Amino acid sequence: MRPFESALCDSWSPADWADCTVLVAVSGGADSVALLRALMAIRKQGKGRLIVAHIDHNLRVESAEDAEFVQELADRLAIPALFGKVEFEFTLTESGDGIEAAAREARYKFLKQFAMEQGARYIVTAHTADDQVETVLQRILRGTSVAGLTGIPRARELAPGISLLRPMLGIRRAEVEAYLAEIGQDFRHDATNDESDFFRNKLRNELLPLLRSEYLPQVDQSLLRLAAGATECREYVAAEAERLLDACLLTQSSKQVTLNAKRLATADPFLAIEACVLLWRRQDWSRQEMGRDKWRALLTLIAADAPAPIELPGGIRAEKKGEQLTLTPPS
Amino acid sequence: MRPFESALCDSWSPADWADCTVLVAVSGGADSVALLRALMAIRKQGKGRLIVAHIDHNLRVESAEDAEFVQELADRLAIPALFGKVEFEFTLTESGDGIEAAAREARYKFLKQFAMEQGARYIVTAHTADDQVETVLQRILRGTSVAGLTGIPRARELAPGISLLRPMLGIRRAEVEAYLAEIGQDFRHDATNDESDFFRNKLRNELLPLLRSEYLPQVDQSLLRLAAGATECREYVAAEAERLLDACLLTQSSKQVTLNAKRLATADPFLAIEACVLLWRRQDWSRQEMGRDKWRALLTLIAADAPAPIELPGGIRAEKKGEQLTLTPPS
Repeated sequence: MRPFESALCDSWSPADWADCTVLVAVSGGADSVALLRALMAIRKQGKGRLIVAHIDHNLRVESAEDAEFVQELADRLAIPALFGKVEFEFTLTESGDGIEAAAREARYKFLKQFAMEQGARYIVTAHTADDQVETVLQRILRGTSVAGLTGIPRARELAPGISLLRPMLGIRRAEVEAYLAEIGQDFRHDATNDESDFFRNKLRNELLPLLRSEYLPQVDQSLLRLAAGATECREYVAAEAERLLDACLLTQSSKQVTLNAKRLATADPFLAIEACVLLWRRQDWSRQEMGRDKWRALLTLIAADAPAPIELPGGIRAEKKGEQLTLTPPS
Repeated sequence: MRPFESALCDSWSPADWADCTVLVAVSGGADSVALLRALMAIRKQGKGRLIVAHIDHNLRVESAEDAEFVQELADRLAIPALFGKVEFEFTLTESGDGIEAAAREARYKFLKQFAMEQGARYIVTAHTADDQVETVLQRILRGTSVAGLTGIPRARELAPGISLLRPMLGIRRAEVEAYLAEIGQDFRHDATNDESDFFRNKLRNELLPLLRSEYLPQVDQSLLRLAAGATECREYVAAEAERLLDACLLTQSSKQVTLNAKRLATADPFLAIEACVLLWRRQDWSRQEMGRDKWRALLTLIAADAPAPIELPGGIRAEKKGEQLTLTPPS
């Protein structure tokens, strides 16, 4: 087995997937082509199926050629390939960020749909340690919280029984390129999902090389370790917040939530806010305008004796009666 | 009251210190000269004393002139000034980091000694939001944990009844400079404690300006908010770790510590390691070589049934007998 293939096995045990249907997101770029080739090589023993999924974002003129490349590759490897094409309607005011976010959303929607149609257990994407470094650095510069520092998650449940997995998150791009050279596999040079993201490319091609050469050669390792540490810390905090929320929750529906205000008021304020953030997420209430001051206002209400009700962003009414907090979104 | 003076009052209420003895660390640079002048202006109403402390690190040829400048300033303001001179013995192999760390340690040792001699309640230093930004960015690049992201702490107890405080940590260097221009106060241009730190200066004078102009104008705010978020998160984790440690601690002396292994084994592993880190700090045991793998080895021992004892870095022996963990440093 080649070094890249072993690294992939170490990260994602073949026993976990060799008998499953696995949908592999392949852009045609080096990372995803290497992932596909390595999974093919590893799978030999298993009974599972590999299926290629290619999403054409239609953002570059060459994108049709990327799709052709992926089709030919899949044909040569004799595995099925599914193609999705995103139709965007752009306005000139749209920022690169907005386009990127819309493209990402459309991509995962297609992948999820394909996975459901094919009965896939896993969707795998080829994000590497280099993608992680760039994501963490980008978030740090743009402004993030400890939660944001966790970077790209390794695993996420996209739908019941369908996991999105990134088994290459601990593997460097250089290892990918060495592997492709070794097996003589070509790839599309610009088939990246981020090509519309000017900031990201500048960070990858200018800032990170500058930091490595002029500041610290080990800056990538620094960012990866920080992401790993933040992930451990956030997993703990998230578990505690969930425990607190569940202990406080009295009734929950899309129309109203009632909580044990006394229990919430005696918790650590940091954790109480984390529990509220989790509740907002579970209820799918917008957190866009729920800044630090709004969460604090909610905590103040919870701790007060017979306070007047307040209205939070999104028109959510918070009212405390006795020892019960009622949260009501607009009907 | 001038804007800088009000900002300082907002950050550190005069009611808290106006009747106390306050030792002000003054290098002669803009930040500390502004701090001294503003505290003088604010204090007028109070009965407390201000005392200047200047530590000459003897690292630059001009350092004697810095001391003279501070002496003249104190004389003009009619407040007492204390001077400490650090005598280093360098070896050619010493890195800038080593020198900086030694200088910092010597500085705080002098300040603490002066504060004790003078019965000072507070030692204040003039670290600004810009120092915080630089510290956080430097740590990110060099490699840090969530704990390291908290940056320069606002307050720290240096000795019983003596607090080290940084009331300017929310104030930008530009506000400092505007204030000094307003009141026509000069300062020593290179009187910085970091002048020996090439990396720090490069980060301040090259990298941060580049990030602001070529990447994100708001990068300073991003880093300050990250530090604030990390501080809240860490305070919560530290409080929980302390609670867990105290709940597990059976006996504690410099020669031996015994812990309730069962209690520790049932805690969240992340928190259990945090509690052990805290114990190591309390015992003043070296954590230098206690990497992630060593902490995990300790957790494994704690969770195991009748395991063999292990030796941890620093010769600390960890032994589990029944439900009791014994930690013994070398005698």
